[in-house]
Amino acid sequence: MPVLNVHHIAIVVPDIDHELDFWQAALGLTVEHREEVPEQETVVAIMPVGGSEVELVQPTTETSGMAKYLAKRGQGLHHVCFEVDDIEEVLTRLKAKGIRLINEEPVVGVGGSRVAFVHPKSASGVLVELVQSG
Amino acid sequence: MPVLNVHHIAIVVPDIDHELDFWQAALGLTVEHREEVPEQETVVAIMPVGGSEVELVQPTTETSGMAKYLAKRGQGLHHVCFEVDDIEEVLTRLKAKGIRLINEEPVVGVGGSRVAFVHPKSASGVLVELVQSG
Repeated sequence: MPVLNVHHIAIVVPDIDHELDFWQAALGLTVEHREEVPEQETVVAIMPVGGSEVELVQPTTETSGMAKYLAKRGQGLHHVCFEVDDIEEVLTRLKAKGIRLINEEPVVGVGGSRVAFVHPKSASGVLVELVQSG
Repeated sequence: MPVLNVHHIAIVVPDIDHELDFWQAALGLTVEHREEVPEQETVVAIMPVGGSEVELVQPTTETSGMAKYLAKRGQGLHHVCFEVDDIEEVLTRLKAKGIRLINEEPVVGVGGSRVAFVHPKSASGVLVELVQSG
């Protein structure tokens, strides 16, 4: 199967530390690490859950797409990322089916991974990220 | 660890069949089964992904909370559900921490499961569902 797993769920927040009362202290998840992602003008706190992760994403500027999304819609679910075994093959198939892509080719994501985003217009209103496995 | 896994991601849509071009034909997921959930006035199409599921949720009336959410915000991510090993223990801990709950005690969810929802005000703007494992 080309889609292996829910890799992560990303939640955009104005202040990661302010949100840890719920995710860490109350729910019991643990921030495994934090990472600055300069390309996306964000900092990300990664909390493993089973074979997936919850990512809290905090914009570090006011000009990024993430910051504008936060200003417009408020904090909450931002995107879901699926791990795939062959991202080029999946992107080729999506293009052949007329699916609208934000990234026609893989770009660099968190931790140097290879990722691509599908446009919500083609995915039930959901911003879908794909990440290459391994 | 009390939180075991991402059990499912729920996406609210006006018409499940219309959305399968992306999730099934293009992305390659498979609808394992559909279920009417009269208590929630919805029908749900369940697509396994690794150890999790993507659920497409279609309101069957215009009066349910889900239908109103769809009318107001449009289709897209609705909630994320985490599988826990002891839902009573988790709810007790959340209450002790002052987390706002929609369900103070478990209620019946999809497939007769025992579930409870956490209010988005206490969970970074995310509607969080908890489901008892097993």
